[in-house]
Amino acid sequence: MKRESFLAVVSGPSGSGKSTVIKRVMEGIGGIWLSVSATTRPPRPGEVNGLDYIFLSEEEFLEGIERCEFVEWARVFGHYYGTPKKPLLENLARGIDVLLEIDTQGARQIRKGFGARCTTVFIAPPSLEELAARLSRRGTEDEGQVLARLEAAKMEMREGAGYDYWVVNERVEEAALDIISIIRAERCRRSVRFW
Amino acid sequence: MKRESFLAVVSGPSGSGKSTVIKRVMEGIGGIWLSVSATTRPPRPGEVNGLDYIFLSEEEFLEGIERCEFVEWARVFGHYYGTPKKPLLENLARGIDVLLEIDTQGARQIRKGFGARCTTVFIAPPSLEELAARLSRRGTEDEGQVLARLEAAKMEMREGAGYDYWVVNERVEEAALDIISIIRAERCRRSVRFW
Repeated sequence: MKRESFLAVVSGPSGSGKSTVIKRVMEGIGGIWLSVSATTRPPRPGEVNGLDYIFLSEEEFLEGIERCEFVEWARVFGHYYGTPKKPLLENLARGIDVLLEIDTQGARQIRKGFGARCTTVFIAPPSLEELAARLSRRGTEDEGQVLARLEAAKMEMREGAGYDYWVVNERVEEAALDIISIIRAERCRRSVRFW
Repeated sequence: MKRESFLAVVSGPSGSGKSTVIKRVMEGIGGIWLSVSATTRPPRPGEVNGLDYIFLSEEEFLEGIERCEFVEWARVFGHYYGTPKKPLLENLARGIDVLLEIDTQGARQIRKGFGARCTTVFIAPPSLEELAARLSRRGTEDEGQVLARLEAAKMEMREGAGYDYWVVNERVEEAALDIISIIRAERCRRSVRFW
């Protein structure tokens, strides 16, 4: 069926488990391309350049901003994060939907730029207690960083109320199935209504 | 997660295959109750009173209208069809979603009465040719009735454009999965946004 491709924007605080959920989503549904963000933050162990992120120097990132190469960008915890414009527009133009995993600042910019062409999904942890536990367990950051992320998470949760869909990540499989269902439903909602 | 229960209204012309699709939907998702319509049309072979329809005499139906016992009703091809109010409101109040298989006239009444509490899904046949073939194949009606249904179907297709979601029934399994996804997505959309 003919329809317009769309942007699925997924946000959620650190510790909401959004990366794991999104990995399952991409395994479970076709016809959607996962955008790879650019960042100036150093790679964590195991992260692959070009796959998990496009790792850039601060100079390279600022040049990219200058040349309008990002559809959204933000500075979070002292590092830049941005979504490269070119591959995103190319996929949309080919009729392929695009999944973006970005923070609430970025989501606001995307909503402003793409309007009704984007659908927003917020992944929430089951509770603040569980969120704190997940952030501590990760062990890649010291206690100060964990507390800073927890504060930022509380702020993000407030912004989450404005999203189109709200998925509570209690179990990864269920949360992934929620998002797959949202993508599938959106396709029915955006279908062209004549034969 | 706490959320408000909602009405999923499914319409589609005769021959769209909506009854078969809805049967699969009910097998594939829980937490939703399928409303049983009342009608004055005579049972078709194999139809069970109280399960497929509540079969009423014209007198009984008109009394029901008088007592405001239907949330919507319509006269189609000389027979009355209506949705009993009591079980529908009881299920909604218990937090159970309700699925209604009704025509576009009825859907308009439901939308008027329930507003944002209802979500509308239109099941379309893949093409007008396929629709005509399906109606003839059914063999429960003569040629004049088939032509009348085909004309009514064309009119219904035009009304279908105003529905929230549009599902083309090319293959029953896929169409059912579309509707299951829509119900699941709607639950995420209507979730209460705080812990």
